[in-house]
Formats: sequence, structure tokens, C-alpha cells
Amino acid sequence: MAIGIFDSGVGGLTVYKTISEHFPKADIHYLGDTARVPYGSRSQETVIKYSLQCAQFLVENFDIDTIIVACNTASSYAIDNIREKFGVNVIGVVEPGAKSAFMLSANRKIGIIGTRATIRSQSYVKALQALSPGISIQQTACPLFVPIVEEMLIETEIAENVVKHYLDELINKGVDTLILGCTHYPLLKGVISKIYPHVSIVDSSEAIIACIEELSVDTLQNGIREIYLTDESPAFETLKNVLAGGLASKKVTL
Amino acid sequence: MAIGIFDSGVGGLTVYKTISEHFPKADIHYLGDTARVPYGSRSQETVIKYSLQCAQFLVENFDIDTIIVACNTASSYAIDNIREKFGVNVIGVVEPGAKSAFMLSANRKIGIIGTRATIRSQSYVKALQALSPGISIQQTACPLFVPIVEEMLIETEIAENVVKHYLDELINKGVDTLILGCTHYPLLKGVISKIYPHVSIVDSSEAIIACIEELSVDTLQNGIREIYLTDESPAFETLKNVLAGGLASKKVTL
Repeated sequence: MAIGIFDSGVGGLTVYKTISEHFPKADIHYLGDTARVPYGSRSQETVIKYSLQCAQFLVENFDIDTIIVACNTASSYAIDNIREKFGVNVIGVVEPGAKSAFMLSANRKIGIIGTRATIRSQSYVKALQALSPGISIQQTACPLFVPIVEEMLIETEIAENVVKHYLDELINKGVDTLILGCTHYPLLKGVISKIYPHVSIVDSSEAIIACIEELSVDTLQNGIREIYLTDESPAFETLKNVLAGGLASKKVTL
Repeated sequence: MAIGIFDSGVGGLTVYKTISEHFPKADIHYLGDTARVPYGSRSQETVIKYSLQCAQFLVENFDIDTIIVACNTASSYAIDNIREKFGVNVIGVVEPGAKSAFMLSANRKIGIIGTRATIRSQSYVKALQALSPGISIQQTACPLFVPIVEEMLIETEIAENVVKHYLDELINKGVDTLILGCTHYPLLKGVISKIYPHVSIVDSSEAIIACIEELSVDTLQNGIREIYLTDESPAFETLKNVLAGGLASKKVTL
């Protein structure tokens, strides 16, 4: 049995990388919907439709027992639909991330950043409030973060100014823990920590490891790794050495 | 007979606006493929497929005699396919823009900026070389410009730094005329002119007016205006007052 991961594009490779390194013998098939990326600016209806097609591809083509929805937007909108339609384990990034943040925060003031769709969905807010109704939550969408990562402008003054533009107000409200609610954002962890060194940062991909262990997913296979993309992707070419061990991608149509 | 305009998203509304204002009695149907925007990072094959579907929608639903391909990426890759398949006038943004730049440039050093796909396609380079083989051309892709416009960060220090990041090198090579090869970029005309006041800027939407006149397109109709989008779009909500006279959009599936 293998693990299937899907994402709207290449950002989910941060999740792929963490899982690959932690479970070196797991068989992992990654699908990035680069022909229709980004999901983060689209409607709920469209995100559900695209997400079900991604899950369908994984289930039809591989012996999958666990689907990891690496995309925060898809996790926010479509996870129940995927669980309902396919008889496999489905792990999203929202609940594990919310749980980590809840355990890390000392003052119970938690910040959430993500795409417009993830923020609008209130998914992290709901997951945090389920853990503790009285928790204080600040959230904001950061649409420029993804292109900054994909342009590899991570270590620049532009990145620092954009981080301050989006985060100053939120951090000034006393947030001590920040959830990176988009798979691209872990690549900005360095610059965010440099500007706000006192803030704990939650990268959901790390929280997913615990979920995989809890569900007793079979991670002792042949270490097969495959990356499928629905379109050629310059961003993949930029990031593949950093995130995918230089692995080449295969083209697929959904 | 009406004019159909399509674009990968809402950027083409800069073209819609110019044409609407110039021909107040023309019937104009605009389609923005916001469910699959942006085209600028996708492959040629995918851009052609999506563009033909957009053109099909316009031809099937309205009494169209002229299709304007407002998207530079679609103009660069798919215009011949659209011309071949549909028996109507097809006007892209590339040739009119190249012609304007050629007439404006005094030193025959022309710069081109656009999405990755538009730059990779070499479409403006080919159009300029067809006008004058010895012309000097510099080009660069500016992937951060679109999100800066859609985030309405146009008048900020971030915008200025990003403009310098992409354009300093190109302008320092002596370019006296710059083609804005993406429909979003006219909204950055102000900041670009402020930093490089000696450079002439070409906005293709203005060059399209001359094409419409040359082709004797019927622009004396009832002044009907319709905007169709393939998905809800926060960017449309941000830009509609500036570019579409506050007109509401209608949802459509391709």
C-alpha cells in the first residue's frame, strides 16, 4: 500500500519532502495540479471539483491506502468530500497544524496566514476553536508570498518588506504562534523568524508525521517515489532540487 | 454583430475598458477564465486548449464577428489556432503592440516585459523582427507584477522595489521604449514612468483600437456590455470599479 499526496501545484513538495525524509521506505506518489494552480484564489465549488479529480487519479492509478491533501485550500474546502467518496485514509494539513499551534502557544494568541481561500474558509479558526473555544485568533491572507517563493526571492529586501507588509499588524496584536497555512510558506520561515524571532512557527508538514504514525500507515515498502504534474512547471524546475531531491516529473492529464 | 474579448482572467479588462470607452455603442462580451488563471505559467499545449475553449464559448453564445484575444500569453501561443478554427476576425495584442513600439522608438532599442510564457514564446521578438530585422531587443519576465496589481499595492515602496528588481538591468541597456506585454501591467504604468521617465511605454490595448478601425468592425450597436467569469474572483471585485464601470459579472462553465 502506498501514500498518495496531492497539491494544487508544487508547494506541496514541502510536505512530500518532510514525509519522504521521515519514512525513507514508504512508496509515495505525488500529484501537483500545475495546469490549474493556484487553488487559493478560487471558489469552494471549483476547489472541491478539482480536488476530487486529483484524489481520483491517485486512487485509480496506484495501490493507495492514504491520501495526504497537502494543499491548505483543498484541505479547507474538500476534505470531507474526499473522505466520503474514497474508502481510504485522508489526512489534511489543517487539523494537524491547528493541534501543533495549540500545543506550542503559551499565551493562547495564535496567528494564521494562508491564501485568500484558506483564510475565507475559516478552517483553521474552526479547528482551533474546537480545541479551545476561548482562544484568540488573528488571520490574514498573503497572496504575494507564493510568487516570492516561486521567484526564489526568499533572501531579499523585497521578501522582508512583503513579510512586514502582511505580518506587522498581526504580530503586534501579541500573537506568539504563527501557523503557516500554505505549503509554500515554510520556505519563508527563515525571513519570518529573522523579523519576529520571538514567534513560534508551525509548519503543518511536520504535524502530518504524527498523523501518519497514529493511523499505522504502512511506511515500509520499496521507497518508490513518483511526481506527476498536470502541466510543465517552471516553478517545479526552480524548486525540484531543494524539495524533490532532483527527481524528474511525469506529465499527466486529469 | 458583436465584439468578443477573452482573457485568462481579469487583466484583460484593461483592454475591455479602452475599447468600451472608444466605442461606446459597440456590443461587447467579455470572458475571463478565472477558474484557470493564470495562463502565463503554463505550457503552449495547455494555453492553446484553454484559449480554444474560450473562443468557442464566445462564438457559440453571441453573434460575434470579431474576437479580441486580450491575454498576451494566449495571443502569443494560440492566435493561429483560433483563426483557423473560427471564421471570424481575430485580433491579438502582440502585433499591434509591436507595431506601436516600432513607431515610438527613436534608437531602435525596445524592451519587452510579460509573463514567463509570453517571454518564452518569443512572440514579440518575432513580430518586431518582422518589422525590422536589425532591431535591438531586451526582454524579461516579471511574475510578481500581476499579484502586486491584484493586491492593489500599485503605489507602494514594494511595487517600486519590484519594478527596479525586474527592470533596472533591461533599462540600463539603453532601451527607450518598453512594451507592456501583459494586460495587468498598464496599472503599473505610473510607477514605471516615475522611475524611468525617459522611457516610452506601449500599452497594447491602445494599439488595438487602430486594428478595430482598420477591419471596419461594426461598433455602432446597442452598447450592450457583459462580463462572464468561469469562477468567482476576488481580483475582479478589487478591480471592477476601476476597469469595468462597476458592472457585475456572470458565472459560466466552459
